[in-house]
Amino acid sequence: MFEFSITARAGRARCGIFRTPHGDLLTPVFAPVGTQATVKALTPTQLVEIGTTLVLANTYHLYLRPGDELIRDLGGLHHFMQWHGPLLTDSGGFQVFSLADNRKIDNEGVTFKSHIDGSLHRFTPEKSIQIQENLGADIIMAFDECADPTDRSYTRIAMERTHRWAERSLRAHTRSDQALFGIVQGGIDPELRAESARFIASLGTPGIAIGGLSVGETKEEMYATLDVVMPLLPEDRPRYLMGVGTPEDLIEGVRRGVDMFDCVLPTRLARHHAAFSPEGRLNLMNAVYARDERPIDATCDCYTCRTFSRAYLRHLIMAKELVAGTLLSIHNVRALIRLMEAMRAAIQDGSFEAQVPRWLEQWQGNAKRHASTPWRNQV
Amino acid sequence: MFEFSITARAGRARCGIFRTPHGDLLTPVFAPVGTQATVKALTPTQLVEIGTTLVLANTYHLYLRPGDELIRDLGGLHHFMQWHGPLLTDSGGFQVFSLADNRKIDNEGVTFKSHIDGSLHRFTPEKSIQIQENLGADIIMAFDECADPTDRSYTRIAMERTHRWAERSLRAHTRSDQALFGIVQGGIDPELRAESARFIASLGTPGIAIGGLSVGETKEEMYATLDVVMPLLPEDRPRYLMGVGTPEDLIEGVRRGVDMFDCVLPTRLARHHAAFSPEGRLNLMNAVYARDERPIDATCDCYTCRTFSRAYLRHLIMAKELVAGTLLSIHNVRALIRLMEAMRAAIQDGSFEAQVPRWLEQWQGNAKRHASTPWRNQV
Repeated sequence: MFEFSITARAGRARCGIFRTPHGDLLTPVFAPVGTQATVKALTPTQLVEIGTTLVLANTYHLYLRPGDELIRDLGGLHHFMQWHGPLLTDSGGFQVFSLADNRKIDNEGVTFKSHIDGSLHRFTPEKSIQIQENLGADIIMAFDECADPTDRSYTRIAMERTHRWAERSLRAHTRSDQALFGIVQGGIDPELRAESARFIASLGTPGIAIGGLSVGETKEEMYATLDVVMPLLPEDRPRYLMGVGTPEDLIEGVRRGVDMFDCVLPTRLARHHAAFSPEGRLNLMNAVYARDERPIDATCDCYTCRTFSRAYLRHLIMAKELVAGTLLSIHNVRALIRLMEAMRAAIQDGSFEAQVPRWLEQWQGNAKRHASTPWRNQV
Repeated sequence: MFEFSITARAGRARCGIFRTPHGDLLTPVFAPVGTQATVKALTPTQLVEIGTTLVLANTYHLYLRPGDELIRDLGGLHHFMQWHGPLLTDSGGFQVFSLADNRKIDNEGVTFKSHIDGSLHRFTPEKSIQIQENLGADIIMAFDECADPTDRSYTRIAMERTHRWAERSLRAHTRSDQALFGIVQGGIDPELRAESARFIASLGTPGIAIGGLSVGETKEEMYATLDVVMPLLPEDRPRYLMGVGTPEDLIEGVRRGVDMFDCVLPTRLARHHAAFSPEGRLNLMNAVYARDERPIDATCDCYTCRTFSRAYLRHLIMAKELVAGTLLSIHNVRALIRLMEAMRAAIQDGSFEAQVPRWLEQWQGNAKRHASTPWRNQV
């Protein structure tokens, strides 16, 4: 279980197969986010139709509602949400830390107030693992502290705590059908990142996550950090860049050797009427689309692009029809999954490095981060 | 075109085939409502999967947004919304009259304020037909006045106006690929209803609608009105009971000879967390379902019932996940379509009259009208 085989390479980029109890993942892979046990506005059938192979769910949210013990009692998260492929849960750390004034961190764990009802709760590494074992995802995360990268004096404290918590997470973990990944932290400080990469690599976990990126730093800082971290990670384990998912970042991540990504971006953009396209990011509320008979992207094979005009999608948005969110989510998630498929094929056939400039140019207009991605208040 | 063949009878109930340019309708048929060129929360593919054969769209809404001329210029409503089966539009009359203080009726037509931006508009029979020709549905409606059934002194005025407007609608209609139905009015006054039925029948339209029911009268009054009207309508034309769709009303309508129904009820209930079931109408927000592993209806063949537990659906509702509306809409529409399929099969095999008491009992708990079905303000 959790065997990782590399099937092709192109520079630092690689294609692989990651074995999980719920199926083999072809990497590099992009996972849409199902925060509350559903990818927003999409059914599991629609996820399968657009080529989704891995789904992420959020430990913090599911712990609070409906509760991890309820999900365990009803057969685990796969059965509860009827997603039969590989599932990944985060540790809950990122959400808790984003609660800002409503949480207090100490060396043992974090005490926080629920965003739902203000009730008081406490996460420790042991508690996070217990919750993730109750949920039962195939891939789970060590409890970590994601610190504000602009607060450099605090970054070392958070990193060292993350290392202690990784050790405690490993000791607490009992289920052999779950791969527990350690998480590299260290902000955007190259020395701390290198120290963290070496330490987490030394733990021997079946995969390694890179946390604390795409949380307010510049793209140059993110890529420079990956340039420090990636060469220090073991070649034979999948590397997971957490919370990253603009098309440009996927390309820049894959070329640096990242194997797994997740991001709310495609579904969040969909709910804000924005669609990825070769022309750049389209805001379909724009009046210019009122009589536009073209699909969002004539080259896209998704249901939305095969079926509906921009004019119709704009009408649904103007009329506040919720199905617009479904149709745009189908397209946006499919767009990122198609990009991953294209990158995998290019790594396999040797054309990856030649194609990177074209992809970057094609996706440039889509590359800007969404305005509502602040470091804090991600819940 | 628009040939109607009766294939079986059971008392006054009948099974038939109604030919339209976009396919043959097996009757009796239930049409979900796609007010704004989409059935709320459902894609056309999902509609086909649950056995939908006929969809209704609202002339008033589409005239205001995105505009009937835009839809005409983009290839008509079928192409715009990508519904390839038969479509039906209402005349816009019911919505306009439900605007209450924001409309003024005269013998020529109705002047009204848009519910979107307060702008002033005017519908006449000629305008309604022109809009419906621009939309291009297979089955369209004469412009009528639906009067408050509790205001009996006004009912005759509205009925006589409806008759004049039916004649004007017929004269205005030019497209041979659309079946224009006249509409019987007359409130709940048996003499007026009989007079209206005879008059509308005399116009020779390819189908006849019964309007002005399910707008505040009691169920007994509705059924008594059908008992007056149905025997006066030509046997060889489909009869369409507008806006009616509780399970009980479908059964009581079919046994009185109704061939077509439409109603927002299944999709509206879905958005209010309610599901049809053999146990009666379930409110899935109820805490009693928090750990209920059963589907909504173990006998139902819909995607929702084949896939998800009540516990999961309740979780989606509590977590305000919009996909709950999709999943409940799939079930509720399918439930009514299955009921129609069962009634058609029973009429064909001779068991209809024997089965009616069982159906009525089974659906009794679902039969109450939805609390938010006032006569006014349906827009």
